[in-house]
Amino acid sequence: MEFTLDALLVLSRPITADLTRYMKEAEELLQKGAPAGEGARIDEWNLEKDQLKLRIKSGRYVRPHDAVYRIKNYLAKEMGAEYKTGVREILGRRYEIIFEVKDNPERDMKVPFVKEISFKNKTCRILLENLDDSFLQKNYVDRIINLVNEKIEEQLYAGKGEHHEITWSSPVKEHAGSKDPTQEMKRKNWIKHRGRGQWIYGPIPTKIIKTMESIVEEELIKPLGFQEVIIPKAVTWDVWKRSGHAKNIYNEIYYLSPPKTRSREFWEDVIDEYRITGEIPLDKIKERIDPPIGGVSYAQCPPLWPFFENRTLDLEQMPLKLFDRSGPSMRYESGGIHGIERVDEFHRIEIVWLGTRKQVIKLHKEIIEAYKKIFNQVLDLEWRLAWVTPWFMAQEGINGLADEKHEIGTVDFESYLPYKGSRDESEWLEFQNASNNGIKYPEGFNVKLSGGKKLYSGCTGIGLERWLATFLAQKSLNPENWPHEFREGFGEMPEEIRLL
Amino acid sequence: MEFTLDALLVLSRPITADLTRYMKEAEELLQKGAPAGEGARIDEWNLEKDQLKLRIKSGRYVRPHDAVYRIKNYLAKEMGAEYKTGVREILGRRYEIIFEVKDNPERDMKVPFVKEISFKNKTCRILLENLDDSFLQKNYVDRIINLVNEKIEEQLYAGKGEHHEITWSSPVKEHAGSKDPTQEMKRKNWIKHRGRGQWIYGPIPTKIIKTMESIVEEELIKPLGFQEVIIPKAVTWDVWKRSGHAKNIYNEIYYLSPPKTRSREFWEDVIDEYRITGEIPLDKIKERIDPPIGGVSYAQCPPLWPFFENRTLDLEQMPLKLFDRSGPSMRYESGGIHGIERVDEFHRIEIVWLGTRKQVIKLHKEIIEAYKKIFNQVLDLEWRLAWVTPWFMAQEGINGLADEKHEIGTVDFESYLPYKGSRDESEWLEFQNASNNGIKYPEGFNVKLSGGKKLYSGCTGIGLERWLATFLAQKSLNPENWPHEFREGFGEMPEEIRLL
Repeated sequence: MEFTLDALLVLSRPITADLTRYMKEAEELLQKGAPAGEGARIDEWNLEKDQLKLRIKSGRYVRPHDAVYRIKNYLAKEMGAEYKTGVREILGRRYEIIFEVKDNPERDMKVPFVKEISFKNKTCRILLENLDDSFLQKNYVDRIINLVNEKIEEQLYAGKGEHHEITWSSPVKEHAGSKDPTQEMKRKNWIKHRGRGQWIYGPIPTKIIKTMESIVEEELIKPLGFQEVIIPKAVTWDVWKRSGHAKNIYNEIYYLSPPKTRSREFWEDVIDEYRITGEIPLDKIKERIDPPIGGVSYAQCPPLWPFFENRTLDLEQMPLKLFDRSGPSMRYESGGIHGIERVDEFHRIEIVWLGTRKQVIKLHKEIIEAYKKIFNQVLDLEWRLAWVTPWFMAQEGINGLADEKHEIGTVDFESYLPYKGSRDESEWLEFQNASNNGIKYPEGFNVKLSGGKKLYSGCTGIGLERWLATFLAQKSLNPENWPHEFREGFGEMPEEIRLL
Repeated sequence: MEFTLDALLVLSRPITADLTRYMKEAEELLQKGAPAGEGARIDEWNLEKDQLKLRIKSGRYVRPHDAVYRIKNYLAKEMGAEYKTGVREILGRRYEIIFEVKDNPERDMKVPFVKEISFKNKTCRILLENLDDSFLQKNYVDRIINLVNEKIEEQLYAGKGEHHEITWSSPVKEHAGSKDPTQEMKRKNWIKHRGRGQWIYGPIPTKIIKTMESIVEEELIKPLGFQEVIIPKAVTWDVWKRSGHAKNIYNEIYYLSPPKTRSREFWEDVIDEYRITGEIPLDKIKERIDPPIGGVSYAQCPPLWPFFENRTLDLEQMPLKLFDRSGPSMRYESGGIHGIERVDEFHRIEIVWLGTRKQVIKLHKEIIEAYKKIFNQVLDLEWRLAWVTPWFMAQEGINGLADEKHEIGTVDFESYLPYKGSRDESEWLEFQNASNNGIKYPEGFNVKLSGGKKLYSGCTGIGLERWLATFLAQKSLNPENWPHEFREGFGEMPEEIRLL
């Protein structure tokens, strides 16, 4: 690694002075915290009136954007007394950084703030120009280096796709269903298509979903002792910053913007124009709303975490077992025609647990067992388990695995959809997952555990549309084909709504 | 009423002709559909090359923006054959409209598209200039006149406020509660404040809310036979156009915008900038999202109606009784510090019924009786009933009453909050309403009833935060003060979450 910063220190008043001694002493400070002789050094300096120009060089240690502030503080103290001046401002006129990378990237790379970037023999050279004080101070430089490394990593992984390793499969089953349940339900007025990836569910599919919810309550929530909470569905940026989602999900968010004000006068011409034209004046609206404050719930559990943020939980009270089913989440899914198995607005029971490493691993296993019982004995599904890239990594745009031992990470539940084709060739549906998220969220939201142990957490989202899609695809819409126990819980079939 | 339009008809090629005969014949057409002699007339005309200038005048009947198209069609037919030309374009160079109004407005009035507007002796004069074809054809002129009348109406009503007439009051009761439950719950970590008007509800308040839901199920939903459905919570403009909300609610919407595309490349520099700066690049995001497609659910029932849109319901199947509790609605409420009784994100059980006039009125009454039983016998509240401006009018910005007989309209349920002060001086909380919406929604969404009778509908929203606020304000947070039947349903008190 090689850093070369041409910095300009603007003094608070012009002076004439020989700074040789000061520079020598300052340079000694640049060795602190580095192995002997490996700190930064001042290669050149030049003072003219109020302009002190420095060239600072370093290797890995005491990088010039840090070194320059050590120099500033030193000069303020030493020179301030003698010359009645201080450093008013620091500018980075030119900053060259050379560092080794894992591999040369396969495609051209664009990086914000970077004037030039080039690669040669697994070495990256970056040139930055005209950097202001805050750029240097906020450590953007180190983050730029990280970003370059991450981008190379992503390019390397891009071809490989997500990790996917099947760890368990149910027996092959015979299925009464052979058709796409979305089409069947539409035909019978059970559901009605609305906006992009959005459906209205009439009484029959809603009753099926509610029956599934009851099964989850009886087989999982109650026996394992989970308690219901209500998590907000409008998620502000601070949550996604701490959860890591702000690193990646922009292309899938439904953004939320409030009006700039509630004043009726402010909105009067929008209202008037609509009343005359009958068209929503979108251009006028765009000018009158704030930038997005965040978006609609994406993953469901992150907005729970502010409840605990910056606090310490009581070890005695662990594990905490909570769940939320208070509203939909939204994702801007890919276009084209999809059924209820891929929707923009979807409903999920989100189950969350917090505790020690041991408690969280144990609950993760118990939950998977409870699901197995539900899918095998109650719903009688054909499905399989896969160990995959953890969702909290995938949603940050990272590939790979968190833990080779399969303790921290995500297990996907995948179902066979007969209408999609043969078992081998068709795409199975990820209708469920369960994750041990390790220390990810406690760290992100700065939540501690009393007694000094690390806090762990896990979560599992029950995607009700996907349960419905799986169940009806395998069992058909005819209750006579449904498993006995499910039909018992479902009870009487509601009348279909007749639309003439 | 007096309309004077100076129109320019641009011909498809220049001609020289004496149009006297044509104009005379055309003028006869302008009498059709009007009482004798009260149609429009052509006051002046002048042809120069391809420019035919007309001055058309009318009273109430056959207004010039309609008349000019009759003339166009006539000329196309008659003149087309003889002169091999037609009318290529119609422009309104100047349009003066004079009409009587209820009263002179109290404040200056601004109206889109209007160049000049003035009032004198309850007469309004409007001047429009340079109107294009679509402006004339889409009948904006009549809508401008309506808008002026509505604005005068609104100004007249503005001082009077909403209609509010108390029709029933419970006995005065003694209350164990005297404090603001929001503050009490915060102190005990039952709830945690999030964004603007947004809270996370921990296990205890959630269990209270769920107990209330069960009471509603047992006392109202099941005995009256309502069936659960799932209504989308992202509401697109088409719904609000048909429900009438597009006329008014812009200052309270949380707007929803999807990304312009899902392409990762498109979003790469947003992602990269965030990864370097740690700040969300809002300016870049604003450029990369679409104009709002609508907003988050406001009133909860309008997005159900597309299920029935443009269809006919079966009289035999009436009344249809449905309810939804699938997610929160949002409103941009006024700023300042509020408790859970006034929130931006709130949860509601929305109950909807459709049927004949008689069925809808009957259900409205039965529902009010069911609520009375819940509030008096189960929750033991101090509350009152008020007949108010119907919500479907209020949300369109209209004041007054729909129906003097108190059959079609809204009844509000208001509760006394002891911590707010004395019964007489403090503001009571509207914690519940129930409406007979008449033919409003069936008309808006074009839904018919077989057999030719008109379809009616009603709805009632159970605002769970407001039930909670009312209950805890009157009964306190101590279960020992809660009514026996409620405590039975509530069961064991969950442990408070300890945040150290």
